[in-house]
Amino acid sequence: MRTYNAVTSPTSPHLTAIPTARGGPVAPSRGALRPLGLGEVTITGGLWGRMQELNAGVIIDHCLGWMERIGWIANFDRVATASGEHAGIEFVDSEVYKLLEAMAWELGRRPDAALEVCYRGIVSRVAAAQDHDGYLHTSFGHAGQRARYSDLEWGHELYCHGHLIQAAVARLRTGHDDELPAVARRLADHLYAAFGPGGRAAVCGHPEIEVALAEFARATGEPRYLELARLFVERRGHGTLGTMLYQGHEYFQDDVPVRDAEVLRGHAVRALYLSAGAVDIAVETGDGELLAAVESQYLRTIARRSYITGGLGAHHQNEEFGDDFELPSDRAYAETCAAIASVMLSWRLLVQTGDARFADQIERTLLNAVLVSPRADGRAFYYANTLHQRTAGAATTDDELSERAEASMRAPWFEVSCCPTNVARTLASVAGYFATTDGTGVQLHQYGSYTVDTTLDGDRIALRVESEYPRDGSVRIVVVDAPARPVAISTRIPAWARGRAEVAISAAGTGTASEWSTVPADAAFTIERSFSAGDVIELRLPMEPRFTRAHPRIDAVRGQAVVERGPLVLALEDVDLPEGVDVEHVELDPTFSPLDDVEGAIVGLRRRMAPEDEWPPYAAAAAELGDFFTARMRPYKDWANRGPSTMRVWMPVSER
Amino acid sequence: MRTYNAVTSPTSPHLTAIPTARGGPVAPSRGALRPLGLGEVTITGGLWGRMQELNAGVIIDHCLGWMERIGWIANFDRVATASGEHAGIEFVDSEVYKLLEAMAWELGRRPDAALEVCYRGIVSRVAAAQDHDGYLHTSFGHAGQRARYSDLEWGHELYCHGHLIQAAVARLRTGHDDELPAVARRLADHLYAAFGPGGRAAVCGHPEIEVALAEFARATGEPRYLELARLFVERRGHGTLGTMLYQGHEYFQDDVPVRDAEVLRGHAVRALYLSAGAVDIAVETGDGELLAAVESQYLRTIARRSYITGGLGAHHQNEEFGDDFELPSDRAYAETCAAIASVMLSWRLLVQTGDARFADQIERTLLNAVLVSPRADGRAFYYANTLHQRTAGAATTDDELSERAEASMRAPWFEVSCCPTNVARTLASVAGYFATTDGTGVQLHQYGSYTVDTTLDGDRIALRVESEYPRDGSVRIVVVDAPARPVAISTRIPAWARGRAEVAISAAGTGTASEWSTVPADAAFTIERSFSAGDVIELRLPMEPRFTRAHPRIDAVRGQAVVERGPLVLALEDVDLPEGVDVEHVELDPTFSPLDDVEGAIVGLRRRMAPEDEWPPYAAAAAELGDFFTARMRPYKDWANRGPSTMRVWMPVSER
Repeated sequence: MRTYNAVTSPTSPHLTAIPTARGGPVAPSRGALRPLGLGEVTITGGLWGRMQELNAGVIIDHCLGWMERIGWIANFDRVATASGEHAGIEFVDSEVYKLLEAMAWELGRRPDAALEVCYRGIVSRVAAAQDHDGYLHTSFGHAGQRARYSDLEWGHELYCHGHLIQAAVARLRTGHDDELPAVARRLADHLYAAFGPGGRAAVCGHPEIEVALAEFARATGEPRYLELARLFVERRGHGTLGTMLYQGHEYFQDDVPVRDAEVLRGHAVRALYLSAGAVDIAVETGDGELLAAVESQYLRTIARRSYITGGLGAHHQNEEFGDDFELPSDRAYAETCAAIASVMLSWRLLVQTGDARFADQIERTLLNAVLVSPRADGRAFYYANTLHQRTAGAATTDDELSERAEASMRAPWFEVSCCPTNVARTLASVAGYFATTDGTGVQLHQYGSYTVDTTLDGDRIALRVESEYPRDGSVRIVVVDAPARPVAISTRIPAWARGRAEVAISAAGTGTASEWSTVPADAAFTIERSFSAGDVIELRLPMEPRFTRAHPRIDAVRGQAVVERGPLVLALEDVDLPEGVDVEHVELDPTFSPLDDVEGAIVGLRRRMAPEDEWPPYAAAAAELGDFFTARMRPYKDWANRGPSTMRVWMPVSER
Repeated sequence: MRTYNAVTSPTSPHLTAIPTARGGPVAPSRGALRPLGLGEVTITGGLWGRMQELNAGVIIDHCLGWMERIGWIANFDRVATASGEHAGIEFVDSEVYKLLEAMAWELGRRPDAALEVCYRGIVSRVAAAQDHDGYLHTSFGHAGQRARYSDLEWGHELYCHGHLIQAAVARLRTGHDDELPAVARRLADHLYAAFGPGGRAAVCGHPEIEVALAEFARATGEPRYLELARLFVERRGHGTLGTMLYQGHEYFQDDVPVRDAEVLRGHAVRALYLSAGAVDIAVETGDGELLAAVESQYLRTIARRSYITGGLGAHHQNEEFGDDFELPSDRAYAETCAAIASVMLSWRLLVQTGDARFADQIERTLLNAVLVSPRADGRAFYYANTLHQRTAGAATTDDELSERAEASMRAPWFEVSCCPTNVARTLASVAGYFATTDGTGVQLHQYGSYTVDTTLDGDRIALRVESEYPRDGSVRIVVVDAPARPVAISTRIPAWARGRAEVAISAAGTGTASEWSTVPADAAFTIERSFSAGDVIELRLPMEPRFTRAHPRIDAVRGQAVVERGPLVLALEDVDLPEGVDVEHVELDPTFSPLDDVEGAIVGLRRRMAPEDEWPPYAAAAAELGDFFTARMRPYKDWANRGPSTMRVWMPVSER
């Protein structure tokens, strides 16, 4: 029995082009764990299977339709033909690139001739807009446009370049070294000339190029790309970006060098993309100090500046982190992209350190902060993700471009539409966050229905994981093939399940399982032995709904509790309350243990009655509690799928 | 005994130029109460006397110095001489006008030859920039500038015009119909031509012109100005202003017509200035429906969208109101200007309705949300007024122009510097909010040291009010002169004092006071009889510090309490805690009754110890409470006067 909290043994870095076919989004040359690629982990069903089907069948097409309709893809044609006006804000190129990345992962997952033709068509249009020296951007550097790199603070040029390069990495990792990787190489070479050791010592206002170049270096074996990524990280934090009335150096993470900071701060997505890039660079350059710095900043950020959903960013103003423990439910910005960036960072730290807390955080974030974004039908998205909606907003129409983030309902598309395409690329590549190997065996970090098929020191190991998780807490791990020698199969025990999970193991052909036994309260359950095809490890995770009380320093939720069920945060919506009762006038009765209810819970409530327009308005009118009644709470990720509604995640607890 | 909760008896409106010499900021032609002007109420000492001295001796000069230094006054010279570049953002003219208004009130308060020369000098420079047709603005309509009224949403042209006109009203009401009123007449005539019945049917993005034109109509007797003000109010709410990515019609109060709205919403200062103007227009046009609508909106706003300090505006984003009961202490924007605008609105409703709740609100707002803005030395100001500062920010230097509102310390001047000049004009005219008369006698709404000298049906009544309130709860009202017939002297009993105030009355010459008796729990104490010079009414208000619990719907402060002393909200600062203890790690012990301590209190506290970087971070680690100790809490208005500090108004209450 052991956890996978192994510590990385220092090895000298070796940046060589790793075999790319069927890889995943992140392929570090070293680390405690080796990520399995999309060719090694295949989602076969369950929640993630359904989400991938929705992505393939609806979301990608939805994004494509909007971007053709409002001319964001046509921006490339306009540059290629030197005609027409640029559509949308400066950085809409990045949405096209994130969609290309989603398509590439999707094509890697399963062949689709029509999608392949569509993908290649868009890539050709992008390629046609590339300047002879490799520069590629549709709103800078051409006739009638501002000069290249004339607005590094706000122009987002290198941010867009980063997303192009990430799309190229996806194409390489799915086995194609074709047009987009070629475009990306020319672009990256141009960037090295423009911003490399002999170039301009500057950074982009929005980090992204760092993580992209580092991964592109891994995918191509080209050390100059890593060097440029490293320069961008090291240059940051010296106050070289110009500030604005509302955006100081902190907003851009240009206030303190990455290796000297104590916590993530400023614009949340910027801070997280930058941190992910810094980890990659630290790993590939053997910079243990930088790696430790980012790990420490991120752990402190999660402990003090993250929502229970995994959401990050407490301020609408500047889309930024607040102070430690400043986590208002009602003003949770918790941008979908910040949640996705947090998964990217958690994964990088997980594979470097083997610390299962990062896998816990991936689970929490994916199942709550990310999956809340797409509507059930995949045709509308949340940008900001509040944890408390006091008034049911007006429904948005599916035909209307929305402002950014203030809508109480999901919107089909946004003027700044970073989130839908980010959801698309994440769903297409989500299998990449599920499993790893190390010298001893296989680690399963996430649950669902999927297969693992990889090798350990040249010997095949193949597993089939079967679960309707998180609806159900039962997980069957079936050995399909295994080396003849002893290997370890390790499976994460989520923090909320520790000490209460049970396991039973049956050997192939015996037909009978072992007795169920309680798993020790560790971060993972590991069994090391010689496995045979047909061996089964069965896990039972305790899915009874539970109360989680607020940390006493979070003023915004003092005296409140969340109901969680397994990894899912639950929410109470008006539509699930009796006529005439609303979420603002009920308290949770802590004496009634919530009952399990499919993916949700039945909770005990009391209506709270207090005058609301008394004078003076501040004195606490003694609130009276009404009769006990029960109501259904459902997963937060599914809220607002039944029309405009009010909603609470944190519920006042009646202690009287 | 009666309260002054009289209801306005409908009378037909009569707009005639009211004798202006020695009037106050607001002079409605009818209402339940008649405001006393600055010639009738004179502050003689006490807190308000000291604040007026600070204003006259430091604040006005500070504002003048900054605006000369950074060229905001010179903008007028630039227009007059058609040379040079405009300094500052589009609406800095308004700061010059608010300073002129402050100077006019100040000159009305007491002659000052040097200030008069300075005032006239600035007025001449302003006048020289007026175009031949009456238009006056330094950043629109001249060579190299954008065209007049080409950006009604954001240009703030009519907003600036409104402040010019308010400055002219102050000059008229202090007995001078000279250059600035003449400039204002030409400007108002131009505006009537441009936007009146035959002109463009548009509104300005920032209300202010409405309240200014209505008062100017009162001061000049010119009905066209009232008509134009009415048009601006009626045109609003029909979605004619163009929206932005983050600012919808609600931001501008252009979503719903004023008379149809249910609550104030959008940008707080905009909403409050608009409401004040709407009241004036309703009064002068006999529009009882409009008056009732604004009164109802405002009462609901105070009950559900105001802070305990009187501050308004819960969002930094858009400087706007949040939802009902969305009142986070740590993100209280509570702009100083919104507090001042709220005093303007409360006063208008008080004199119309006689409802003492509005006088309560003026007291709360002036003593907490307004007076917190200026630093003790009058050389730095808060723009936003948080109720909770978690981290002690860096000190600002007195020499540096500041960004708007995010500083944790007061700043000497801002890029948008609306608050310092607003404080200056408010302090100079604050006596205008202290007392009224009606058909039966005199009403005293605020306490301090001041004299009242006015007439009732032609007979003089003069009172001397003596008090070190709010430091002290004793108030002596000495009759200096009174009519021979019975008259009523009515004095507000603040809501927090009701049922606990005491009164003693002594007749002139008797040398002995009556026994102290408890005042009935009404909104005012009224004694109606024939008074003689030397009669004294002595009032004792209960100043023992008290706990105020949060309304159960305000999630942000659930389980917390404020300590109030009289009308003052108290705050706990780190600098008043023992070494090693900070405001984030203590709870208020409710079993210890706070002790009175000059203007503050000695409270009982317990240190709270809970792990802060645990995993998972959401579960409530059981907090332990340390030993009991006591600490000093001081008035909120005085916080951050001893260097950077952390601070809390709402304190967690340890119920264990």
